[in-house]
Amino acid sequence: MAITLAVDCMGGDHGPSVTLPAVFEFLRHDTDCAAILVGREEVLRPQVEREGNPFGDRLSIRHASEMVGMDEAVASALRGKKDSSMRVAVDLVKDGTASAAVSAGNTGALMAVSRFVLKTLPGIDRPAICSVLPSQRGSTYVLDLGANVDCTPEHLLQFGIMGSLLVSALERKERPTVGLLNIGEEEIKGNEVVKRAAELLRATDLNFIGNVEGNDIFKGTADVVVCDGFVGNVTLKAAEGLAHMIGGALKEEFSRNIFTKLAALVAMPALKSFKQRFDPRRYNGASLLGLRGVVVKSHGSADQLAFRFALEKAAEEGRQRLPETIAARMAAVTCPRSGIPGTQGEAAPTLCD
Amino acid sequence: MAITLAVDCMGGDHGPSVTLPAVFEFLRHDTDCAAILVGREEVLRPQVEREGNPFGDRLSIRHASEMVGMDEAVASALRGKKDSSMRVAVDLVKDGTASAAVSAGNTGALMAVSRFVLKTLPGIDRPAICSVLPSQRGSTYVLDLGANVDCTPEHLLQFGIMGSLLVSALERKERPTVGLLNIGEEEIKGNEVVKRAAELLRATDLNFIGNVEGNDIFKGTADVVVCDGFVGNVTLKAAEGLAHMIGGALKEEFSRNIFTKLAALVAMPALKSFKQRFDPRRYNGASLLGLRGVVVKSHGSADQLAFRFALEKAAEEGRQRLPETIAARMAAVTCPRSGIPGTQGEAAPTLCD
Repeated sequence: MAITLAVDCMGGDHGPSVTLPAVFEFLRHDTDCAAILVGREEVLRPQVEREGNPFGDRLSIRHASEMVGMDEAVASALRGKKDSSMRVAVDLVKDGTASAAVSAGNTGALMAVSRFVLKTLPGIDRPAICSVLPSQRGSTYVLDLGANVDCTPEHLLQFGIMGSLLVSALERKERPTVGLLNIGEEEIKGNEVVKRAAELLRATDLNFIGNVEGNDIFKGTADVVVCDGFVGNVTLKAAEGLAHMIGGALKEEFSRNIFTKLAALVAMPALKSFKQRFDPRRYNGASLLGLRGVVVKSHGSADQLAFRFALEKAAEEGRQRLPETIAARMAAVTCPRSGIPGTQGEAAPTLCD
Repeated sequence: MAITLAVDCMGGDHGPSVTLPAVFEFLRHDTDCAAILVGREEVLRPQVEREGNPFGDRLSIRHASEMVGMDEAVASALRGKKDSSMRVAVDLVKDGTASAAVSAGNTGALMAVSRFVLKTLPGIDRPAICSVLPSQRGSTYVLDLGANVDCTPEHLLQFGIMGSLLVSALERKERPTVGLLNIGEEEIKGNEVVKRAAELLRATDLNFIGNVEGNDIFKGTADVVVCDGFVGNVTLKAAEGLAHMIGGALKEEFSRNIFTKLAALVAMPALKSFKQRFDPRRYNGASLLGLRGVVVKSHGSADQLAFRFALEKAAEEGRQRLPETIAARMAAVTCPRSGIPGTQGEAAPTLCD
């Protein structure tokens, strides 16, 4: 049995009514995986029994008496709820029982709990949140999406390295391209942090293509787009908002009158295929990178399909031993004299301390 | 004759082939307005004569021998080209011949030239670029969109005031709502600059609704959304990129095969109406706010309709005497003891210096 996921079954807007069927579906499909359902046993047990548990010892329940609320303050989740389903799921990664944790709970709390329990990897100052967005060429991984509002050039460099390794692991790309989000392609553009980050990224052996702009995220100019958490969070939410507005308007136009409603019927195959193409459920699952363990955050409003995508992502990061890969790479970057090809000494003084 | 526009006819991707017909259309429609065509007379004169100039002395030509290239460095445009069409158009505002200047040229150069020639208004540290985006409720004005990569809380406060006055002038709204772009609605979210800016904004008599998130731009939660130029620029370009990708995908789905092509014919009215709703041409024209004169920047790729929207916007800002309104308001804000209702003293120490 290769991978065991610890699943916070109580988190998210829908709790066990979504998380449990998603886990069952996941186990049916990923036969090399196991799952530990974390949450209130009196809630979870009857549902598992109703299902008849066809998974044997691949499925188990770990009782956790508390729950972190979706709007709960980080401090309260971290200090006040040591037996929350979120905390226990992360604890199971820490003690080696599980290879990865998945939660649809409160992002801030999940990051704080994961950081507190698992700690950051050597060479990583700050964990980052990385998610994938659709692009004209496939998909673009963007980080940080909100864990770090103020970043130094060194943080952005670390995000670039982690993002690149994530894409290698999940997309099987050998040298993913990395772009730095800026307000122009020219090197003179942007603030001092971004300019210095570009120098640091250029001095590594990453496949760094320089500055990219907001529209490049959706053009697919780079596999990985690096930015601070403020810019990343605003951009991601703006994109969600715009997509929602456009989708709503399209629906409105096709339900305006009897003629447009008939047109919608005729256009159904094209409209359906269009909708599937950008189905946000397929992109669900943000990776909390830079921790000593795999943690994946599902969107709070995820349905069964979306939550399953988050589970798949966590399993794949676990299979690829992503934290170990990041740690190894950071050790090489922080000490470039170790002989990683293409890693120039220039970046060393800033990082090797 | 109320308003005279100085139009940089050589700027943009298409130059006079777009700018001239747009000006003619504008003059046909706005009969209280005049326009000065700025650019190479040998290019402009024949085209005006071919049109037969039905506008009499409402249309004139002002020769300018040079042109600022779309990718030209700001320093070269500013110092090396004192007789560029862009520069001469702004000069005409400075000397009072024109009420407003419009250019589809290089944004950085236009901002630098405008700032150098016109200077900033008293009480404004940095001019900002403000543009309007469609929202579920109508439209949202966002600033800054790229003039200022690093902003202090005081800059963001000034952006809020200018944006609010712009919306009052263009949309006839008495107390437009102002939101501060952040990564969460709660007051504790964001970096120190944003937190302090929220305090400053709250202490004014603006209709400040607090923090808003990226998706709120398209929800229409606030009439004005304030952010630094880095975040604003990235968000705007990301939105453009996403809209472009979605539009392209929709087209692709409907041209996939003979059935979807037929469906597209049937769905044409709905698709057309959908397209018109978000037609970016209707949103063309970014205001350079905080200068001692009206300057409007058109998108470089604007076509005739889009450029005309920029001309209309410039004319309206001229009619409303926006720079004077901003100056009067800044004088009241920087010295709150002057008795503007609701302006509390708290903001004063930072600004009154």
